[in-house]
Amino acid sequence: MSEQSRLRCWRDRMSKELDKVMNFWFQNSHDEEYGGFFTCLGQNGEIYDDLKYIWLQGRQVWMYCRLYRKVPKFDKQEVLAAAIKGGEFLLAHIRPNCHSLKCAFVVTREGQAVKVQRTIFSECFFVMAMDELWRTTREERYKREAWNMMDQIVYWVREDPSGLGRPELPGAAPVNAMAVPMMLLNLVDQLTEEDEEAARKYEDLRNWSVERILQHVQRDGNAILENVSEDGKELPGCTGRHQNPGHAIEAGWFLLRQAITQSNHDLGRTAVEKFVLLPFLSGWDQQYGGLFSFQDVDGHCPTQLEWNMKLWWPHTEALIAFLLGYQVTRDLQLLDHFQTVFDYAFSKFSDPEHGEWFGYLNREGKVALSIKGGPFKGCFHVPRCLYMCMEILTELLAGHDEPPSSITSEAC
Amino acid sequence: MSEQSRLRCWRDRMSKELDKVMNFWFQNSHDEEYGGFFTCLGQNGEIYDDLKYIWLQGRQVWMYCRLYRKVPKFDKQEVLAAAIKGGEFLLAHIRPNCHSLKCAFVVTREGQAVKVQRTIFSECFFVMAMDELWRTTREERYKREAWNMMDQIVYWVREDPSGLGRPELPGAAPVNAMAVPMMLLNLVDQLTEEDEEAARKYEDLRNWSVERILQHVQRDGNAILENVSEDGKELPGCTGRHQNPGHAIEAGWFLLRQAITQSNHDLGRTAVEKFVLLPFLSGWDQQYGGLFSFQDVDGHCPTQLEWNMKLWWPHTEALIAFLLGYQVTRDLQLLDHFQTVFDYAFSKFSDPEHGEWFGYLNREGKVALSIKGGPFKGCFHVPRCLYMCMEILTELLAGHDEPPSSITSEAC
Repeated sequence: MSEQSRLRCWRDRMSKELDKVMNFWFQNSHDEEYGGFFTCLGQNGEIYDDLKYIWLQGRQVWMYCRLYRKVPKFDKQEVLAAAIKGGEFLLAHIRPNCHSLKCAFVVTREGQAVKVQRTIFSECFFVMAMDELWRTTREERYKREAWNMMDQIVYWVREDPSGLGRPELPGAAPVNAMAVPMMLLNLVDQLTEEDEEAARKYEDLRNWSVERILQHVQRDGNAILENVSEDGKELPGCTGRHQNPGHAIEAGWFLLRQAITQSNHDLGRTAVEKFVLLPFLSGWDQQYGGLFSFQDVDGHCPTQLEWNMKLWWPHTEALIAFLLGYQVTRDLQLLDHFQTVFDYAFSKFSDPEHGEWFGYLNREGKVALSIKGGPFKGCFHVPRCLYMCMEILTELLAGHDEPPSSITSEAC
Repeated sequence: MSEQSRLRCWRDRMSKELDKVMNFWFQNSHDEEYGGFFTCLGQNGEIYDDLKYIWLQGRQVWMYCRLYRKVPKFDKQEVLAAAIKGGEFLLAHIRPNCHSLKCAFVVTREGQAVKVQRTIFSECFFVMAMDELWRTTREERYKREAWNMMDQIVYWVREDPSGLGRPELPGAAPVNAMAVPMMLLNLVDQLTEEDEEAARKYEDLRNWSVERILQHVQRDGNAILENVSEDGKELPGCTGRHQNPGHAIEAGWFLLRQAITQSNHDLGRTAVEKFVLLPFLSGWDQQYGGLFSFQDVDGHCPTQLEWNMKLWWPHTEALIAFLLGYQVTRDLQLLDHFQTVFDYAFSKFSDPEHGEWFGYLNREGKVALSIKGGPFKGCFHVPRCLYMCMEILTELLAGHDEPPSSITSEAC
């Protein structure tokens, strides 16, 4: 098959998959009574719990707005209405009380706070939701909410973390955990889209985030480690040796987007070689296929019980990363890796019967949890991957002639 | 094989296993420099991290003292010396600072606090360690430490939990989580051994704990649920439907010990029928053997990634529970269940090559994590099970004639 046919074939498959995935959420997740979304959904969409995890609410608002704004077939009033109801639910209930700067991690169906995490992630996905809601509706109050919360997050991360509520302990040295600069870089990417003022405001944060991510290249450039010291040195013990292949690959495509924005060739090369290829080559299970969830750089057994399970989201990140990497480098080996992940993901995670993907397979690739959504899986990684890959594939195909019409979507 | 031969055979196998298990810890886990124990140990005993998890420190001190005190072959100076060094390490380092009532969850090798959990469990295992250390050494200061900490724990649980540091949130109704009354009942059992004064002091707490455990019998007596409301009603959602078969079975033998102490026949029957048999019959994997880690009483898929993994500790609890249940009821089906769990555990978890048991198997019974110790597994469940089962078997055999000498330990 010609390269062009492959690209077209993948795009067709992903377009159909996106329809099925979004139908799953449209049909099963809307809370018409209180607004917001049910995300604890079983294999065929049944609600098995009505708790609302704040970051999943924020992610679903973001996803709906983004599809509404960018993909013509989702430019529908009901998509926008559900997103707005979700955004308003967040605005009404994200804070446990009106004096609280910290936001809830999970709330009841009606919006009462159940748990508060001592991290920044609920707040971060609120920013993504509000910014995208502003871009979709052009209502300034959403933008104001996004920017105010962003200021608060940056203050906690760069000035004073005490407001997060974690006690200072003598044995707990500050750690540069990759999740934090990754998340901030992703937010900068979001907030600065076609916005010169925002680009200026967040230029320093963008550079800081990139620099902090690059500190995770360790072992003479041969490994990405998830946690390093504040000055970029390897930490002792399991914490220091911990690897999360999916996270490293996700950081890879975040860096690739920066490399494209800034026309930074070296950053693009580092992103592909260090953050995408290294973790893929060491993290792919040669015996059963799929990406391991966690690894120890020295080959010790990780202590996380799910270390050898295959989770959906690292595979969605890898699909984006390989395609974006190919777009930047035109290195054909990246398309071969894309094919490998595509074949694994579409045959193992995708549920042709009820839509959406299973999230959790055992090492051998068998479904271990039949849920489609839960405390950590919502309407985000799968549709974001499908939408982004379709966008990249469309750009790649724009440089080609039309393919022969005989290629069908089953033959990729 | 006669019943008597079976009992003797099991006791022989367990006695040999206990030697191998304890040798693993004696050889690999002692920190001669700082005191306390390394518990992050790989398959053959190599130290892969030197963090010290406080509850595992407390458990190992308890285990060493108990074996020293009760099992003649462990009445050795080096066992006592290691226990004392562990106890002194706890005393010196359990509090993050001298003003803190809350204790650390994990400390560095040297004893600096790394993390504090907002629960009572570090403190509870400190009580067990100190009380057992007092019984072993008769040094009053250990008893004082145990009793003072116990007062603090009871205050947090029954009077005012605010000192634990969990924020009060409008959507988080108070929960009767079975772990709490179970742990307290276990502590009462520990503190009142041959001590009339303690028995009087803790009589009310004993009754309260039993009552709170019994509230977990739900669904018209057909299921044990892990979390119920403060007044013993089923809670909504996943939290309410959550089941932990190993935990229920452990609660079963805690209750059985109370039933024996108090000659309470009804409590003994409830313990066996509701807390041991129900969770065993619903929690045993009919397809691959072994106890599931978590279940949902309505058959939904649990959201915990490890729900279908087979963990070592529920199986050790089941061994104790079936044997103690048999001792109380003389119901032979309990010995058959004991045999089933014994065969599974000794063939799947036990590592004849390096000693100790693997802790984590996949659903099919294959070793998923090769570690022998980690943040949640130390020198406790396996040796406690072997020691307690040997003790019960010895008592059972005391009622029989001596068995024929031809029975070997391989033939149980």
